[in-house]
Amino acid sequence: MALKSFIEVSPDSHFPIQNLPFGIFKPEPASPPRPGVAIGDYVLDLSTISVSGIFDGPFLSGSDCFLQLLCDVADEATLRDNPSLREKSLVPMSKVEMLLPIAIGDYTDFFSSMHHARNCGIMFRGPENAINPNWFQLPIAYHGRSSSIVVSGTKIIRPRGQGHPSGNSPPYFGPSRKLDFELEMAAVVGPGNELGKPVDVNEAGDHIFGLVLMNDWSARDIQAWEYVPLGPFLGKSFGKDGNLFHVLNALWLIWGTTISPWIVTLDALEPFACNSPKQDPQPLPYLAEKISKNYDISLEVQIKPAGQEDSCVVTSSNFNHLYWTVTQQLAHHTINGCNLRPGDLLGTGTISGPEPESYGCLLELTWNGQKSLSLKGATRRFLEDGDEVIISGCSKVFSLFTFLKHFPKHIFTSSHKELIHLCRIISSSIEQLQNPFL
Amino acid sequence: MALKSFIEVSPDSHFPIQNLPFGIFKPEPASPPRPGVAIGDYVLDLSTISVSGIFDGPFLSGSDCFLQLLCDVADEATLRDNPSLREKSLVPMSKVEMLLPIAIGDYTDFFSSMHHARNCGIMFRGPENAINPNWFQLPIAYHGRSSSIVVSGTKIIRPRGQGHPSGNSPPYFGPSRKLDFELEMAAVVGPGNELGKPVDVNEAGDHIFGLVLMNDWSARDIQAWEYVPLGPFLGKSFGKDGNLFHVLNALWLIWGTTISPWIVTLDALEPFACNSPKQDPQPLPYLAEKISKNYDISLEVQIKPAGQEDSCVVTSSNFNHLYWTVTQQLAHHTINGCNLRPGDLLGTGTISGPEPESYGCLLELTWNGQKSLSLKGATRRFLEDGDEVIISGCSKVFSLFTFLKHFPKHIFTSSHKELIHLCRIISSSIEQLQNPFL
Repeated sequence: MALKSFIEVSPDSHFPIQNLPFGIFKPEPASPPRPGVAIGDYVLDLSTISVSGIFDGPFLSGSDCFLQLLCDVADEATLRDNPSLREKSLVPMSKVEMLLPIAIGDYTDFFSSMHHARNCGIMFRGPENAINPNWFQLPIAYHGRSSSIVVSGTKIIRPRGQGHPSGNSPPYFGPSRKLDFELEMAAVVGPGNELGKPVDVNEAGDHIFGLVLMNDWSARDIQAWEYVPLGPFLGKSFGKDGNLFHVLNALWLIWGTTISPWIVTLDALEPFACNSPKQDPQPLPYLAEKISKNYDISLEVQIKPAGQEDSCVVTSSNFNHLYWTVTQQLAHHTINGCNLRPGDLLGTGTISGPEPESYGCLLELTWNGQKSLSLKGATRRFLEDGDEVIISGCSKVFSLFTFLKHFPKHIFTSSHKELIHLCRIISSSIEQLQNPFL
Repeated sequence: MALKSFIEVSPDSHFPIQNLPFGIFKPEPASPPRPGVAIGDYVLDLSTISVSGIFDGPFLSGSDCFLQLLCDVADEATLRDNPSLREKSLVPMSKVEMLLPIAIGDYTDFFSSMHHARNCGIMFRGPENAINPNWFQLPIAYHGRSSSIVVSGTKIIRPRGQGHPSGNSPPYFGPSRKLDFELEMAAVVGPGNELGKPVDVNEAGDHIFGLVLMNDWSARDIQAWEYVPLGPFLGKSFGKDGNLFHVLNALWLIWGTTISPWIVTLDALEPFACNSPKQDPQPLPYLAEKISKNYDISLEVQIKPAGQEDSCVVTSSNFNHLYWTVTQQLAHHTINGCNLRPGDLLGTGTISGPEPESYGCLLELTWNGQKSLSLKGATRRFLEDGDEVIISGCSKVFSLFTFLKHFPKHIFTSSHKELIHLCRIISSSIEQLQNPFL
């Protein structure tokens, strides 16, 4: 990767010229949204570049792909020596507002970390039947809710809902008491497929535009109660505690899902490709890949409690722990004829590694709240109001991307001042509190 | 309902002036899609009417609602005495192509018929624990796939997928052997709600534009195998047979969902409103309605085997069998802050009545294939290639709407001629058959 650019990029930037992730941004609050590419501390405004005619020139015809084209632009005298175009097209990242990078039609979440599946199995069924045999035959997944997927930085309000009743009382109703994060990444579908026309697993990579980081917020107590009628053999044998499998089924109990604003292309990740784990038993022919690829991306979750100056690392995992590859996930998704559309999102599921320090959610890290995590003074079993959850991913060579996610003070315990600070969503909830039905 | 129109409507038409359902249609194959309203054997082209200026006149200001406005238009001299406008705006229904009436963002399917829940419970858990207690506390549901929702008349190809292995063999892979229909209706969301702002159950009706008929095609054998890892206590105790609860969880195994092209507004259904069943235990305050309404809509499913002249009624149910109302479903959906958007679809779940003749799917009607249904000579346990499934709904006074759904011959058994007749989707699959990975 000998690429260089006239744009100065600090060595520890998440956005060197080798990365060039795509996003949607507004340079000013009143600007219309537009596509951009991150380079160092700048966002290259693709709409401005496009209007300038640079894309009409010899670059386009001489480039293998759009990414290479952008490398050329960033490295090229046309832009370097045109101060007016530079000023218009390179916007300081600190000044822009990032938006959701895609219009998500359907959102699917997989369950592809064996360590995660095993931990949940041990927790709720015991070590002898930790993983069901068909987990090894196909990449299990569920449909999720698209409308509540938000971009990094969007405030999350603790959801309300029903929880298990105690004895003969009516069910609990109120704010969730077992809020959790889930460390995930997600593939963004590029070209889709027609209804009735499955995608060959060896061509599945051509249907993936790139990857984002994802936090699949989960309210484990609400899930536990709501899920029961659909999982008829779970019954009440787990008591009032959350059951991880609920996460995978009682889906709308997950209040929302957060993704990073920048999509890193598979091209940019290619230098970090590595072998995927050996699959035993061998997958059926429609899932057997000629080249089975994972990516070496270190993933980290930090929690910063309200009022505490520093955040604490609570887990360190890696994308390469996935048993099923994203290409197998995509091929399996379409094997029944299901059509994917551009912008569809395929989450990996919680990415846990083999070590306790690499588990991808608090449910696993605190073993369903049985032990607490130490956060430089504070302790946590589940998320508390005001917690900030920070998920980052980086390759061996450079940090790829990062995102911050506020977990604001819960509305019931927040002061008025904080509520105003948290703006629209919180304001809406204030209205509801005045409503007698809540 | 003393409404009359200058447009002649036969007494048994599904589309009298009291109904006036909305849809999207193309008058000619090359026309752009446009909104329309069905009146008798005609579609009133709203785009033509809008351009004509009728909507700008005194009608709009004098009408309480758009539906009333349309009644006025259909009854009005302006249109009646303007032959040129009449000819342009009233298109014979036999000539138009109906399209999916909405752009569906998210699709949610509920599980709100107690008889359906009980039958499944008895079938798979025995009569003593047929319905879990929390079923009576909240309207259970799951997220479904939006992209594969198609309009009535779209051909369905039998999906392929994995099924339970026999003994130590690898899993079955091939066309589903347990295809089923599910008799449902679905609410189309009109105005949505903001993220974080639940909808009051007493205002939920204002968020529903209208209802459609729905067939939630289900491949019960594929579901049974795929679901197991997510429902950790089901294991293999059900053997190779489908488990209804799989339908509710392993969602993308459901290949597609079909809806009727016409949306009947709640206004049009108001004359058929009736009391909903008494709910015991009393729902929590956020689900308690001042007026709890169902609608008296007779629902019928017919199957017409290929080559057989007549279709046979296989079940007769009614929308009023729903335990949870559509307004309770909508309010519950948003209680955690989840945002609904215009065009979102909320399925009722299979609508089964108390009598065996009113069960809403073959799983119940044949008790998971244990007995067969007689269809004037033919018999069925599950759907066979070439079956046509016809779902219709009607009120006491007039038939509201109807739709036809082809279940074409399975591709592997079809002749080339039939494949061409079935056009695009089938053609796509032919390509795949040439692909070695299948």
